Amino acid sequence: MSPQNRLQELRSQIDEINLQLLELLNKRAAIAADIGKVQEQLGTTFYDPAREGQMLTALEMANQGPFSNDAIKTIFHQIFRVTLDMEEKAALKKMLVERKNPDQRTVIEFPNGLVIGDGSFPIITGPCAVESLEQMEQTAAALAERGVKIIRGMAFKPRTSPYEFQGLGEEGLKIARQVANKYNMMVVSEVLDPSLIMMMSDYVDMFWVGARNMQNSYLLRALGKMRQPVILKRSFGATYKEWLYAAEYIMASGNPNVILMERGIRTYETWTRNTLDISAVPMVKIESHLPIMVDVSHSAGRPDLAIPLAKAAKAIGADGLMVEVHPNPPVAMSDAKQQLTIPQFHALVDALEAM
Amino acid sequence: MSPQNRLQELRSQIDEINLQLLELLNKRAAIAADIGKVQEQLGTTFYDPAREGQMLTALEMANQGPFSNDAIKTIFHQIFRVTLDMEEKAALKKMLVERKNPDQRTVIEFPNGLVIGDGSFPIITGPCAVESLEQMEQTAAALAERGVKIIRGMAFKPRTSPYEFQGLGEEGLKIARQVANKYNMMVVSEVLDPSLIMMMSDYVDMFWVGARNMQNSYLLRALGKMRQPVILKRSFGATYKEWLYAAEYIMASGNPNVILMERGIRTYETWTRNTLDISAVPMVKIESHLPIMVDVSHSAGRPDLAIPLAKAAKAIGADGLMVEVHPNPPVAMSDAKQQLTIPQFHALVDALEAM
Amino acid sequence: MSPQNRLQELRSQIDEINLQLLELLNKRAAIAADIGKVQEQLGTTFYDPAREGQMLTALEMANQGPFSNDAIKTIFHQIFRVTLDMEEKAALKKMLVERKNPDQRTVIEFPNGLVIGDGSFPIITGPCAVESLEQMEQTAAALAERGVKIIRGMAFKPRTSPYEFQGLGEEGLKIARQVANKYNMMVVSEVLDPSLIMMMSDYVDMFWVGARNMQNSYLLRALGKMRQPVILKRSFGATYKEWLYAAEYIMASGNPNVILMERGIRTYETWTRNTLDISAVPMVKIESHLPIMVDVSHSAGRPDLAIPLAKAAKAIGADGLMVEVHPNPPVAMSDAKQQLTIPQFHALVDALEAM
Amino acid sequence: MSPQNRLQELRSQIDEINLQLLELLNKRAAIAADIGKVQEQLGTTFYDPAREGQMLTALEMANQGPFSNDAIKTIFHQIFRVTLDMEEKAALKKMLVERKNPDQRTVIEFPNGLVIGDGSFPIITGPCAVESLEQMEQTAAALAERGVKIIRGMAFKPRTSPYEFQGLGEEGLKIARQVANKYNMMVVSEVLDPSLIMMMSDYVDMFWVGARNMQNSYLLRALGKMRQPVILKRSFGATYKEWLYAAEYIMASGNPNVILMERGIRTYETWTRNTLDISAVPMVKIESHLPIMVDVSHSAGRPDLAIPLAKAAKAIGADGLMVEVHPNPPVAMSDAKQQLTIPQFHALVDALEAM
Repeated sequence: MSPQNRLQELRSQIDEINLQLLELLNKRAAIAADIGKVQEQLGTTFYDPAREGQMLTALEMANQGPFSNDAIKTIFHQIFRVTLDMEEKAALKKMLVERKNPDQRTVIEFPNGLVIGDGSFPIITGPCAVESLEQMEQTAAALAERGVKIIRGMAFKPRTSPYEFQGLGEEGLKIARQVANKYNMMVVSEVLDPSLIMMMSDYVDMFWVGARNMQNSYLLRALGKMRQPVILKRSFGATYKEWLYAAEYIMASGNPNVILMERGIRTYETWTRNTLDISAVPMVKIESHLPIMVDVSHSAGRPDLAIPLAKAAKAIGADGLMVEVHPNPPVAMSDAKQQLTIPQFHALVDALEAM
Repeated sequence: MSPQNRLQELRSQIDEINLQLLELLNKRAAIAADIGKVQEQLGTTFYDPAREGQMLTALEMANQGPFSNDAIKTIFHQIFRVTLDMEEKAALKKMLVERKNPDQRTVIEFPNGLVIGDGSFPIITGPCAVESLEQMEQTAAALAERGVKIIRGMAFKPRTSPYEFQGLGEEGLKIARQVANKYNMMVVSEVLDPSLIMMMSDYVDMFWVGARNMQNSYLLRALGKMRQPVILKRSFGATYKEWLYAAEYIMASGNPNVILMERGIRTYETWTRNTLDISAVPMVKIESHLPIMVDVSHSAGRPDLAIPLAKAAKAIGADGLMVEVHPNPPVAMSDAKQQLTIPQFHALVDALEAM
Repeated sequence: MSPQNRLQELRSQIDEINLQLLELLNKRAAIAADIGKVQEQLGTTFYDPAREGQMLTALEMANQGPFSNDAIKTIFHQIFRVTLDMEEKAALKKMLVERKNPDQRTVIEFPNGLVIGDGSFPIITGPCAVESLEQMEQTAAALAERGVKIIRGMAFKPRTSPYEFQGLGEEGLKIARQVANKYNMMVVSEVLDPSLIMMMSDYVDMFWVGARNMQNSYLLRALGKMRQPVILKRSFGATYKEWLYAAEYIMASGNPNVILMERGIRTYETWTRNTLDISAVPMVKIESHLPIMVDVSHSAGRPDLAIPLAKAAKAIGADGLMVEVHPNPPVAMSDAKQQLTIPQFHALVDALEAM
Repeated sequence: MSPQNRLQELRSQIDEINLQLLELLNKRAAIAADIGKVQEQLGTTFYDPAREGQMLTALEMANQGPFSNDAIKTIFHQIFRVTLDMEEKAALKKMLVERKNPDQRTVIEFPNGLVIGDGSFPIITGPCAVESLEQMEQTAAALAERGVKIIRGMAFKPRTSPYEFQGLGEEGLKIARQVANKYNMMVVSEVLDPSLIMMMSDYVDMFWVGARNMQNSYLLRALGKMRQPVILKRSFGATYKEWLYAAEYIMASGNPNVILMERGIRTYETWTRNTLDISAVPMVKIESHLPIMVDVSHSAGRPDLAIPLAKAAKAIGADGLMVEVHPNPPVAMSDAKQQLTIPQFHALVDALEAM
């Protein structure tokens, strides 16, 4: 028999055993569910480490291989865990972020006509931070010309050093709101702590969770209780899985409107600030129904890559773009090197419109 | 002239120009300080983007190279920034975390005789999470035998998934406190959000900031106001610089007792959970007076590396060790795979004592 | 004097000092440029942290304020950075790979009409390895239908293990040549060692240097003496700079026809085999006149990402695509998991044609 | 029936099912082991995400609960993982590099009394490159004082740029041999290409394969045919597995005397040249009988970390140290920034002797 055929045959055997295992596992789960009910009657907790220890010892003693005792313990440990999960969260359905069918997509609509997730390619833009009314006014006027419907109104800046400019705070939000109202734009703004949410919700149409807070579970849970949509940036050290689970924290607390934003991961390369992981777009679309946007400012950290990266983001099917624009980048209080000038922004929009 | 001699000569010329630049920069700073005073009189802000723009334009027009206009703008942008910093934070001294002289070291003493930072090598240990009184009691009894003076009392667990075990909460802190009191131990516990600090401070002797929260500035600032020392773990994607600045957030808010903890960084290697960056110990000691400990559990993610890594940590001059110990790791609610058994812990202490 | 007048006066003083600083900085830049030349002679790198440290120490010792030592260090750090940039750019200027003007591009033409580097988007494809005449024949027939003009004729496979399939050797080249001739295609094939070049040159139209050999200088120099163009894949751990210098090894030995191929870098992410660094395309185009293609097979390591990544590659301006196609991937002798089936390949070409 | 009795009864049922699961899992493991053997024949990797995906889909379709599809997927995912581990361990078992029993170790003895792998901690040292007879003479005299028995005689330097100093070639080997003979030292020298081996074997006692050539299979195979031992450095982007397989290439060609050398991996950190992966030492010792040494020069790239890293290497059980020493580092023709001066080398040896 050829190795290929032999492989095929062995795989059929595995398939059959898989089904037998499935049956047995479900039989076990049904009994465990009954045990759970009895435990509820008895008022004891589901989790019983001593009992688990006894079961593992019995299995070790009975095990004759080829699986090692360690392998067997690892598998049963997992069985115990999911059984416990099943008991404890019987009501909890599978992951909320997960795409249940190929057509499922989360589409988020805003009162001014902005739509994210419907296959269009909206641009979220504005300066890195709100610095003054003049700066916001000047920027917004230019953006409005090109149909931008949502502006960055960043008033709380997460900075590496405690001595760097930390944002204008509520004053900055007021400026952003005022300018956005004038141009019929939505405002998105970064939130750094649960204690800021209520105050901020008076000014902003969408919250923004930065890379440094992607796994700040208290913040995520608190945003899950708000009505405003939430942009969740990927931490520069996070896997896809961790990122999707972070989104799950928000959704599990009640807010279905989460937008993922890829912004580059940290690698050894130094010519770019981070390495844009463009594969994140199709990977997220395979796994989740949530929209995913691409931030071409923080990923590259240099304006000369903004146009090509934006074109790639559009072509690959991203749900929109984030790019920083400042009327006078060299004097910006933060991220001076990566923000586009207004003429550069026009060139970017021109390039996208020509696609 | 040999290239080496030519190099030497050119470098002397640079050294001289450096000093001329220094003089000129300080002359500029003195005038800027005067301007700051006038601005205070006039009630205007120090930051004046329009003025900065004018200066840059003037410099661009005057520039004849070899530095490009971009280079000149970048340098002057930096000069503007530090001038502004100087004006705004005249009172602020240089970084608090910085080692000012070779002998400076932060030594932290606890009432039960535990000392961190004095050249000794204390062990912080205990289970990944508080699960029950029995579990903590059993662990503490074994640790006390080997002179351990501080136990992990983890009651709030940061987990990737919202559906995983999140810790026992205040109930867990009570258990940890009760057991620690019995064995005359200190309790250290992870804090996930500023809103938990006051409650936790009734139970814990030291706060713990996990990798995911290393740049949670609101949490860092709030802990800076507490009297308890703070362990600051390095994020698995953070540079040394970002880590030291995170410690600065705590110190700048008033708490001088910060302990850094290296716990491995994320790399492409999969045989270990993370890659322990042992160079962090001497690097931190060169730059800072703060103690630095090494976590051999999360870095390797496997018990069989705990002893060799602990020996390396001690030899390289770390200020102590963190290792997870559980009376029955296979049934642990979290990190089941990496916790040491009690006999493994004894072997670890034996190995360190034999050094 | 009124505060306003005083402010005006102080600002004039600042303006004057700015110009003095400008002059001094450019004087310094000129000397630094000379140092750069000496360093090139000596073969040392421009970046010298020890020397920078000495200069900073000297400045700190000389500094009498009002700028703090930190402020001075920050400004000089910036001066060092832009000086380094200037030196590196100057060195790059003389490199053969460097783009000397915006319109310079290397265009490579083959006798069968295939052109690489002219703005078109040719596809290099075929199976991971030549396995049999039937396999190549079947693949080539399908590719020819879609206008493919160059086929992979891989006969020497670099494998992680010495016990894995290492390719058919010269026999494989014969098969590839025969099939290519039938369909009027070019053949590209990976070369692992200088000793193979002469033999291979009887069969192949283009050489291929794999990621593992990107810095094999003997191989690069030997290929620099051949008339066939060379594809140079980026090592999964190489910076852009190292990659361009590797290309320089080939060009410096006389062969101007080098094609760069991005194929993903190694990161911590495990859902994809590597992380496609799409920014490599515009970065290379900024720095070099060489064509750059994108390999969507090794970067993702999964067929379901091939179409979106190919679209991104085309949109961002890559000079072509590399994708592995096999008539029956599950039984392929190498890379079974990432090769496209023939129907998947048709879907890919359809998707690109629809852009 | 009382709830207690009911609980007892249900638990007996669980116990029985556990044993049935155990039997079935081991049956599955036996077939998987056979599949592993066929895959080895076919030269495919054991890990096959596509196949795993198909199995999970089949299970999801067949699953009728009460376990959710997620629970089933989680359990089977764990089964896949331990099966994969088992297959990989089985494959490793047959590898020559693999440690077959806890006492197996490769010990390499040289005629001058140098021994590597016997638990001692020899130092391999000398300048980055041979530059002149004087330089080598001066270095060797200092090293001999401290009992060093092997010197770096590097005459072919792999450089990033083709325009950097590439080594003195055969002339350099002659110098190294002459000096080594005078001081009764062995010579180790880097080999860049198979074509150099025969010539070099007249001068050197040990070959050195650099990081860039770790997967140059032609070079590895050719060195496998020589009688001299081979140092195999880890590529800065290689996994442990790839590194051990590279050593297997040498051993499989007949040369049992391979010494692994850890020299840091490439990460995002920039304060050190690379990140020393100290865990490599115990990991290699768990998997292999080969000696492993630690290079503290290339890993840190800065002399001020050499002593602490050397102490960590010794404490963790490494089989020796590699450090670059130069009589006058600032004028060295390569790696000027990381080489120790002779006084620094004395301090290093003092520090190790004091352990």
